[in-house]
Amino acid sequence: MMGGTSVGIGGVTTPQGYRASGSSAGIKADKGLDLALLVSDTPATAAAVFTTNRAQAAPIIVSREHLSASGGVARAIVVNSGCANACTGDEGLDAAREMAAETARLVRCSVAEVLVASTGVIGVALPIGKIRAALPAAFRGLGNDHGSLAARAIMTTDPFPKEAAAEVKIGGRTIRIGGMAKGSGMIEPMMATMLGFITTDADVPQPLLARALREAVDDTFNAITVDGECSTNDSVMLLANGASGASINVGNCDAFVDGLNAVCRELAMGIVRGGEGATKLVTVTVTGAASAVEARRAAKAIANSLLVKTAIHGGDPNWGRLVAAAGRSGAAFNLDRASVSIGDVALFVSGTPHDDRSDAAASVLQGAEMTITVNLGMGGTHTATMWTCDFSAEYVRINAEYRT
Amino acid sequence: MMGGTSVGIGGVTTPQGYRASGSSAGIKADKGLDLALLVSDTPATAAAVFTTNRAQAAPIIVSREHLSASGGVARAIVVNSGCANACTGDEGLDAAREMAAETARLVRCSVAEVLVASTGVIGVALPIGKIRAALPAAFRGLGNDHGSLAARAIMTTDPFPKEAAAEVKIGGRTIRIGGMAKGSGMIEPMMATMLGFITTDADVPQPLLARALREAVDDTFNAITVDGECSTNDSVMLLANGASGASINVGNCDAFVDGLNAVCRELAMGIVRGGEGATKLVTVTVTGAASAVEARRAAKAIANSLLVKTAIHGGDPNWGRLVAAAGRSGAAFNLDRASVSIGDVALFVSGTPHDDRSDAAASVLQGAEMTITVNLGMGGTHTATMWTCDFSAEYVRINAEYRT
Repeated sequence: MMGGTSVGIGGVTTPQGYRASGSSAGIKADKGLDLALLVSDTPATAAAVFTTNRAQAAPIIVSREHLSASGGVARAIVVNSGCANACTGDEGLDAAREMAAETARLVRCSVAEVLVASTGVIGVALPIGKIRAALPAAFRGLGNDHGSLAARAIMTTDPFPKEAAAEVKIGGRTIRIGGMAKGSGMIEPMMATMLGFITTDADVPQPLLARALREAVDDTFNAITVDGECSTNDSVMLLANGASGASINVGNCDAFVDGLNAVCRELAMGIVRGGEGATKLVTVTVTGAASAVEARRAAKAIANSLLVKTAIHGGDPNWGRLVAAAGRSGAAFNLDRASVSIGDVALFVSGTPHDDRSDAAASVLQGAEMTITVNLGMGGTHTATMWTCDFSAEYVRINAEYRT
Repeated sequence: MMGGTSVGIGGVTTPQGYRASGSSAGIKADKGLDLALLVSDTPATAAAVFTTNRAQAAPIIVSREHLSASGGVARAIVVNSGCANACTGDEGLDAAREMAAETARLVRCSVAEVLVASTGVIGVALPIGKIRAALPAAFRGLGNDHGSLAARAIMTTDPFPKEAAAEVKIGGRTIRIGGMAKGSGMIEPMMATMLGFITTDADVPQPLLARALREAVDDTFNAITVDGECSTNDSVMLLANGASGASINVGNCDAFVDGLNAVCRELAMGIVRGGEGATKLVTVTVTGAASAVEARRAAKAIANSLLVKTAIHGGDPNWGRLVAAAGRSGAAFNLDRASVSIGDVALFVSGTPHDDRSDAAASVLQGAEMTITVNLGMGGTHTATMWTCDFSAEYVRINAEYRT
C-alpha cells in the first residue's frame, strides 16, 4: 500500500455525493432485502467490467448499451438479487430495460445514465412488476449513510456483506473510494455470481477511469477463485462524481489507483472468505516462472485444484498435489529446481522433499489465512498471486440441493 | 460398435501368450496386493501414452527411455501401487530402473524390454528393497488366468477392479484384446492416477499400434474426468505379441481399432463409475459447435463444472448451470439458438426455457447413468462426447483426510 492510502470501514456512500438504499421487492421468497439503488447526486463518469461468459445475462447487455450510449456517464445503478435475469430471451431484455427506465424516471435522468445488475437463479423470468412497484419506495429510502443496506440487498446467501472504503490524499485534497460486492451464494442454488460496485468522489477522466478499473479488477476480482466458475452476470461498476473537488489525471493518478486497488482487493478477499463452504483464505504465489502469463496459469491451476483445496481443508501439507497442479497447468516447469513452501515452511526445495517439516507445515494450515508459494524452477523473475479458499463438503451440500 | 467385435468379461491374460500375477510386496500399509507383473511369452510390439503433466514421475521417464531403446518392443510390465515414485529425484529414477532390471533378470530379457509404472502418494521414496524381495515370488506366481489378480494389485482405493476384453474376427482368425485399469483412489490421499494396460494377441506393426492406441486413448481415457486433475503418473501401455497368428495392417485394421476402442472405453467408463465419491455416470454430448476443438472445449468445461456435477448429484435439472459452463468455456456459443436436454427431456430449446419439463428431467437424474446434451447453437455439425461422474461430499471426505 502506498503511503497516501488508508483502508477502513465504509462503503459506497462513504465518498461524497452518493446516496443508496436497500429494500425488499419480494423477489426473494423470504422477503429479505433484494433491491439496491445507488444514486450519484450529479452525473458521474462511469466504467465497468463484465463477465467473459458468452451466455451474457440481460442486465449485462443493457448496461453495456447504456454505457456506450451515454459515453461513460451514469447517475444510478439499480440491482436486484434473487433472480439473475439470464437465459430469459427478449422478455428478459425488456425487463432489464424497464428496470432502468423506471429508475431513470424517479432519478430524473436519461435512461442511458442508469446501469442495471441482477443476481440469482438462471432461466427464471424477472418479476419486473414487483420491481416496478418497489422502486418508488427504494428511491424515497435513499440516504447518504445507507451504503450498508445496499450491500445487504445485493447478497444472495453470502454469509456476510462485503464493503470497503479508502481515503487518499491527492495534492492536499482528500478523496474517498468506497465499494460493495457480493460473492458466491444463493437464495436457491445458482451460479456463483460476482457483483462489485465502487464509487469515488474524485473527478476522473473516463479513459483513465476505465483503465484503472480494468487493471484493478485484473489484480483483485480476477485473481480470486472459489470454484473456477464464471457466471453469466459478473459485473464490476465504478462511478466517479468529482464531488470532492479533486481531479485525477495521468500525472497524479498513482495514489488513486492504489486506493482503488486496495478497495477492490478488500472486497475480493471478502468474496473468497465468504465462498461457499470456505473456512480458510489461501494466498497462492507462483515464482520463478518463465513468463508472467505462465506464472498466472500455474497459480490458477493450483488455486482451482480440488485436490489442493481439499488437502488444505483437511490440514494436510500435501505438497505433491501442489507440484502436480503446477505441472499440469501447461506452464514451463523444472521439477529438479522447483520448490514448494506452506507459510515459511519449505517442504520441497530444488527438487528435494523435506518431509520432516510436515508437522510445521500442518500447523500453518490450522490457521484461517495462509500463503502457499510454488517456485516453478525456471529461473525467471515472473510471479503471480491468486487467492482461493479451501473446499469443504459444505460446498456440495449448498449446491446439490434441489432448487424448488 | 462394428459387427466383428464382441466385448465381454476378461482382462490382460485373455489374449493368448500372456501371463500375469498380483502379489503383495508390503508397500501398502494394509499388506494388500500392490505388485502386478504382466509378461508376454514372446517379445511384443509395444506402444504407450503418458501423462502430459510436466512433473513426470520416475517410472514415466524410465518407460519412455526403454520404449525408445528397444524400438517399441516389450516382454514385461511391472507395476506397483501404494507409492507413485514421483518427485523423488535421482533416487527415484534409480529405483524405477532397478525395478525394471530385476524384472528383466527374472524374465530373461533385455532391461529395455521392461516397462514400469507406479501409483500412490507423491514424494515418498519407493521401497525398492521390498519390491526386489517380492519380485521372484511375483514371477513364480505368473499364470495365464491371473489377469484379475493383476487388476486388483494395481488398485489403490478404487472401489472395484476394472477389466475388459474383446474378441475380433480378422479374415477368418480370432484375435483378442484385453485390458485392466485403475482410476482415482488412494491408499493415502494422493493424485488420481490413471493407469491402463492393454494386451492383444494380434501381430501389429509398431507405427500402426502407436497410432491406434493414441486415437483410442483420445476418445476414451482422455474423454473422461472425475475432478479435472491430471497426475504425474498417468500411463496407458499396449502390448501386441502376435500369438493369435493374425496380422494387422493398414488395410484390415478397422476391426482391430474398433476392438481396441471398445476395451479402452469399457475401462474408461469403469474409472468414471469408480471415481472418488461418484454415484452416477454422466455422458456429456456437445453438438452444434463451430469446430471439433470448440465442441471438445465446451464438453470439457461442462464435464468438469462443479456446479453441474453437484446439481446432478442432488438430482436438480439445473440447465442454467449447463448453459453457463458452455458459455464460459471459450467455445463460440449462441444463446438464442442454444439448447439443453437431460436424457430425452428438452429443457431449453433455441433459447427458450421449458421449465414445465423439470420433473421429467429430474426423473432422468434419478438413474445411475444419463446423457446430457448441449447444442451450442452455432449451426455447425461438430460434436464431442465426454464422460464424467457426479460430485459428492464423499470426494471431499476422501481427499481431505490427512495422509498419515
